[in-house]
Amino acid sequence: MTADATVTIGLLHPGEMGSSIGAGARASAVRVIWASDERSDATCTRAEADGFEDVAWLNAIVNQSQIIVSVCPPEFATEVASEVHALGFRGTYVDANAIAPMTSRDIAKIVARNGGNYVDGGIIGPPARQLGTTRMYLSGDSAPFVSQFFDKGDLEVICIDGGAGAASALKMAYAAWTKGTSALLANIHALALAEGVHDDLMNEWRQSQIELIKRSDEGLSSAAMKAWRFVAEMDEIASTFAGNGLPDGFHTAAADVYRRLADFKGHSNAPGGVELAQYLLRRS
Amino acid sequence: MTADATVTIGLLHPGEMGSSIGAGARASAVRVIWASDERSDATCTRAEADGFEDVAWLNAIVNQSQIIVSVCPPEFATEVASEVHALGFRGTYVDANAIAPMTSRDIAKIVARNGGNYVDGGIIGPPARQLGTTRMYLSGDSAPFVSQFFDKGDLEVICIDGGAGAASALKMAYAAWTKGTSALLANIHALALAEGVHDDLMNEWRQSQIELIKRSDEGLSSAAMKAWRFVAEMDEIASTFAGNGLPDGFHTAAADVYRRLADFKGHSNAPGGVELAQYLLRRS
Repeated sequence: MTADATVTIGLLHPGEMGSSIGAGARASAVRVIWASDERSDATCTRAEADGFEDVAWLNAIVNQSQIIVSVCPPEFATEVASEVHALGFRGTYVDANAIAPMTSRDIAKIVARNGGNYVDGGIIGPPARQLGTTRMYLSGDSAPFVSQFFDKGDLEVICIDGGAGAASALKMAYAAWTKGTSALLANIHALALAEGVHDDLMNEWRQSQIELIKRSDEGLSSAAMKAWRFVAEMDEIASTFAGNGLPDGFHTAAADVYRRLADFKGHSNAPGGVELAQYLLRRS
Repeated sequence: MTADATVTIGLLHPGEMGSSIGAGARASAVRVIWASDERSDATCTRAEADGFEDVAWLNAIVNQSQIIVSVCPPEFATEVASEVHALGFRGTYVDANAIAPMTSRDIAKIVARNGGNYVDGGIIGPPARQLGTTRMYLSGDSAPFVSQFFDKGDLEVICIDGGAGAASALKMAYAAWTKGTSALLANIHALALAEGVHDDLMNEWRQSQIELIKRSDEGLSSAAMKAWRFVAEMDEIASTFAGNGLPDGFHTAAADVYRRLADFKGHSNAPGGVELAQYLLRRS
């Protein structure tokens, strides 16, 4: 099958990441629809800029789409899947969210119970606005069917083995490092500050861990602004470790750190380094 | 005061790290004594090679030393300090171990109660056998007094402000990253393996996190062989975070990871990467 306008992809929802995923399909001239009901002005603006067609309501998406792609905060992934299937969707459902493989396999059951095809997805990288930065991993029997509609845009789509849960597990394992270590780094700054040795630690890091100095300002500031939506992702990662009999404390702690930073939601900037550490300590 | 043979430093004990610390003092022609009672053949060999004088018993160290330096596994730090002071030591006591600042301040009280001077120490880097690799941080009023006896060897000694606890806090904050992230890395390998996505994760890391690929074999193998003595250090780090009202789960989890690897004690090699992951999973 060749990607063309005879396929319609329903996008839930055109946030910053979701919109870039939809743009990946638009690059292959695929029709992408979305529903503006209860969505913000910023989402409307993004959706229009990326050439998505507004069908107003979720049931129109369900009725017109052969494929629905869910890109939402992880804590809403199961609810979104349930709503879509309660409305009678029987097409191919792609959950591309940062959820535990166990959560993904639960969603697979909802899909199967309603006669649809489930594809598990995991997105690694920033919103896909530049070739080479972002990969969407897909697993499940229908993964190749979905991937063909993304072969021309900035988003690279990679099909992997393992069925439902594999792409989510890969995402969890990947983010376990990137977001887990950002939280740890913020926590260490706070500790050094609390114990009065922050300057000494920075001097030592400058000698032996220079990459941490580089990461401490811009990297932590960026993480602080996104912290509100990292909390549930850290909980999903912790569940993934626990579900495999492995220590989960790294990510229950990371969730705690991000919870303390959740007030930076919607801010156009946040402090890094020592100022972020001061903020974390005030929340303790 | 100039460093010379009129000062005697007692070394507890000449393990790999401790012996290199003593060698730092020997480079300034300081007399370094140790006690072979209950110590291994390997320790005797090291002590002789580094030119330390064997005075056989702990009470001879206490009677002959102006400075005693404790370098031992963190779980024995308080016990060693208690023994030395129960024998009547009133000189300058340096605890250079990887202990929480709270533990260090408890030891400071033992020293003060017995009329001695306490210097807190924290060692960062491998055993000091090469200039530029290893720094011993010291804090407390007598830190400059101690540091003068280490000005010629491979060990760099740095005095910092903050009194008892500062040097230990710096060590905790430093090791929180280095050893904490090694444990996290091993845990992630195990997770990816358990979920059947290890090859996919390695492919992704090769593209976007190449430094983790490099760290995964040699770095994790080295950590596994030392895991048995990292357990108590992770516990001390966790206590340091908790004592400052910060999340401690990163390091309670790291302690769990290292506990599972403790059987590699005394091995001349240990697996890294995927084989270490298999081992961790079998212990879950």
